[in-house]
Amino acid sequence: MSKQGITSRSESFSDWYNELVQRAELADYTPVRGCMAIRPNGYAIWELMQRALDDMFKATGHSNAYFPLFIPKSFFEKEAEHVEGFAKECAVVTHHRLKPNPNGKGLIPDPDAVLEEELIVRPTSETVIWHMYGKWIQSWRDLPILINQWANVVRWELRTRLFLRTAEFLWQEGHTAHATYDEAEQEALTILDVYRRFAEEWMAVPVITGVKSEAEKFAGADHTYCIEALTQTPDSRAIQAGTSHHLGQNFGKAFDVNFTSSEGKLEPVFGTSWGVSTRLIGSMIMVHSDDKGLVVPPKLAPTQVVILPMGRDDEARSVTYAKADEMAATLVSAGLRVKVDKRDQLSPGFKFNDWELKGACLRVEIGPRDLESNSCIVARRDLGEKVTVPLADLKSYAEGQLAAMQQALYNKALAAREANTSRVDTWDEFKACFDGEGGGGFVVAHWDGTSETEAAIADATKATIRAVPLVGLIPSDDEPGVCVFSGRPSARRVIFAKAY
Amino acid sequence: MSKQGITSRSESFSDWYNELVQRAELADYTPVRGCMAIRPNGYAIWELMQRALDDMFKATGHSNAYFPLFIPKSFFEKEAEHVEGFAKECAVVTHHRLKPNPNGKGLIPDPDAVLEEELIVRPTSETVIWHMYGKWIQSWRDLPILINQWANVVRWELRTRLFLRTAEFLWQEGHTAHATYDEAEQEALTILDVYRRFAEEWMAVPVITGVKSEAEKFAGADHTYCIEALTQTPDSRAIQAGTSHHLGQNFGKAFDVNFTSSEGKLEPVFGTSWGVSTRLIGSMIMVHSDDKGLVVPPKLAPTQVVILPMGRDDEARSVTYAKADEMAATLVSAGLRVKVDKRDQLSPGFKFNDWELKGACLRVEIGPRDLESNSCIVARRDLGEKVTVPLADLKSYAEGQLAAMQQALYNKALAAREANTSRVDTWDEFKACFDGEGGGGFVVAHWDGTSETEAAIADATKATIRAVPLVGLIPSDDEPGVCVFSGRPSARRVIFAKAY
Repeated sequence: MSKQGITSRSESFSDWYNELVQRAELADYTPVRGCMAIRPNGYAIWELMQRALDDMFKATGHSNAYFPLFIPKSFFEKEAEHVEGFAKECAVVTHHRLKPNPNGKGLIPDPDAVLEEELIVRPTSETVIWHMYGKWIQSWRDLPILINQWANVVRWELRTRLFLRTAEFLWQEGHTAHATYDEAEQEALTILDVYRRFAEEWMAVPVITGVKSEAEKFAGADHTYCIEALTQTPDSRAIQAGTSHHLGQNFGKAFDVNFTSSEGKLEPVFGTSWGVSTRLIGSMIMVHSDDKGLVVPPKLAPTQVVILPMGRDDEARSVTYAKADEMAATLVSAGLRVKVDKRDQLSPGFKFNDWELKGACLRVEIGPRDLESNSCIVARRDLGEKVTVPLADLKSYAEGQLAAMQQALYNKALAAREANTSRVDTWDEFKACFDGEGGGGFVVAHWDGTSETEAAIADATKATIRAVPLVGLIPSDDEPGVCVFSGRPSARRVIFAKAY
Repeated sequence: MSKQGITSRSESFSDWYNELVQRAELADYTPVRGCMAIRPNGYAIWELMQRALDDMFKATGHSNAYFPLFIPKSFFEKEAEHVEGFAKECAVVTHHRLKPNPNGKGLIPDPDAVLEEELIVRPTSETVIWHMYGKWIQSWRDLPILINQWANVVRWELRTRLFLRTAEFLWQEGHTAHATYDEAEQEALTILDVYRRFAEEWMAVPVITGVKSEAEKFAGADHTYCIEALTQTPDSRAIQAGTSHHLGQNFGKAFDVNFTSSEGKLEPVFGTSWGVSTRLIGSMIMVHSDDKGLVVPPKLAPTQVVILPMGRDDEARSVTYAKADEMAATLVSAGLRVKVDKRDQLSPGFKFNDWELKGACLRVEIGPRDLESNSCIVARRDLGEKVTVPLADLKSYAEGQLAAMQQALYNKALAAREANTSRVDTWDEFKACFDGEGGGGFVVAHWDGTSETEAAIADATKATIRAVPLVGLIPSDDEPGVCVFSGRPSARRVIFAKAY
């Protein structure tokens, strides 16, 4: 136990994560199995993520829209792979009314209110959206359609974990329709780059961009692009942070969505779909946070600066409280997100720990003595050292330190990824990488391109192909070689890891 | 039929409304009964509404959070009035898996995956939120909680209408917890004022603020405040645009949420809840739009200015297109929402009609001759007349006209409300107000305060009490008198209308 009372990562990564999320008031379990409540401290991170991503989607020509929560059961039967992937574990609505139980207490689903066709709570919206696209698309003039939706979806997960895997989660799902394969390909890659930039520039999480193997691609896609990051779990597991799918004409054909081309030919429409979810919050925690609690990159931190005015008695506090408000106003006018903690029933030590737990990027202390010297004490969340800063310099100091922290978190995560990335050429070396409790990380190795080899490797090591990277981490990754498992020819190295 | 091909209001208000919503590409019907798809043109209005309201909620101290989509069936049994109001028409989830039909084609709910307790898709979230508040509230230090949620909800409506009444709709629901009755009362009134300001200053819709009668209050509330507007239906029906409920200790008691007061006493927590929904979009259409199509107040218009560059051939258009882009850039840099319409396969006349239908506030035409004289032609959506404006003045002219249009729409709606408001003192006059096809509007009359009289009046006229206004429309409304129906004493006039 650390002084905040949360289990340390080395004791139990899983307990550390769960306790951090609950104690920092990011999210909580609810009486509905697998569903979480996202509390204001956690939801504020999601709002900042939404704003940044939404701006990037709009800057690349997309508009938001909204499609129904429910999907008729029969829609899942139209795309063969899609039904395999999604229809199995889902919430099924069968009735539209409750009535008092005639044989006892409480309410029961009314047998006179059975739906003619069951409705599925959307696990993803391709089916209902492509049905609507069929109404809206006639000719090439109606293309492209570049729509995104911010929504909740439900996938009935047996083993859940706050943010990382929940039955209901929040996400955005983009669904675009195009006249040509190449235009859809360009769209899928544009979004992949939006996701990469968001992960690296906002979340401070370095990611690999690549394409999924057949075994790991989206149910119904022609091919799937992804961004993959490495977490701080003791066995350095990988986490998939976002996916962008080229759907080919699969949904166009399944939902009979055709367009008349400028040459007058009737053709099925090409599509893409792409999404990131509240899972990003969990990923970000697993990359940056520490035994003291939450560490959030400043660009996504709800509290960038917390000001703690001190004072032994009401008189002393009346002065420091007023000063703290004034300092806060200056920082807010510079666009920073600031809180002033005036909980005078709590000790300074308690408050320090509390704000470390909750992930404030900069802690500013101002006491009567500091006031005399026109200075304050600032501590940065990722460094901890206290620095005395003249009050007149606070704004520029804070801005500078927030920018520096954003970069420092990225650099640290990149260094950790590099330290946990191995290049191996033999099966013995490969197995050794994943051996024992600490075995893991990214393993960059040659693969013969077959699903059989991928499955055999997963059986032996639990490692799967996270991505065939678009560009090698180092140039020689792109060169041909010999499969680490089968000895057959390999076009290039791919990235293996155990997935979270 | 008007030239845009939509039915006129006088022919059929209901057809006019439905055709307008679909032809302006605001929303569309889906294969899921009662559920709509909100298209980009409509969703952009919702996003502008959300941004404005969210800023107002945050400025009054609220934070956003997110609670589960599903509510255990038993939760509805805890608050007696609430179950009456909401458990009856709702979507009931009974299974968590589909499987292939052993006796035929397709999928069926898996009999081995029946939920132990049915889940209800939230029609509103008081129950699950108050359960969580029970976990989070121990002492007065944990209060107040001021949380808002942006979410989808489902109420199984038999007769639906795009935006106005749909089985699934989008809304915000605020849920606050307080130590005292007075503090909760203040909160309910603060939000009522936020709603009033939003309706009047953003939607350009004048509203009456008041309290609902017992018959019309929220199921589970102590009392309900509302804002009510008058629409343009031939019988001038009223529409409820937002509600703010003082819940008393009803949910605190039902969910056993108690707090230790600063005097050490254990007491049930007081609460409020409040919401507005995508219904606002429908209300706004019914107040401002006309036979040519959508009219949106500029503050909420996705397209404030559309620029139509003209030219007979590619050469002429290459010049006007470039100029239009330049004009757009100037307007965008002033913060305006601008589109340039370069669909050269369409005639100017078609495009004029199309943008009138879609509700662009200002239409700017720029042709080769206008370019020669360094001017353009501007038409305001609500006026129609064309005005020649020097290009150098376009920005300030557009800003001025958008502000003027915002005010003009409000003034026009206010004048229409005044023209359709009657004050009557006898039952014959009262009945006459609601007689015939055009009978309606706000009728300001005395009422004895009983539910029996309210029901008898509704039986006779279909008019219900829309609000007991906080402040009379004119000062004498607040004076006592004699009930228009029963002749018994009345404390003050109240507002009757037929509700949409």
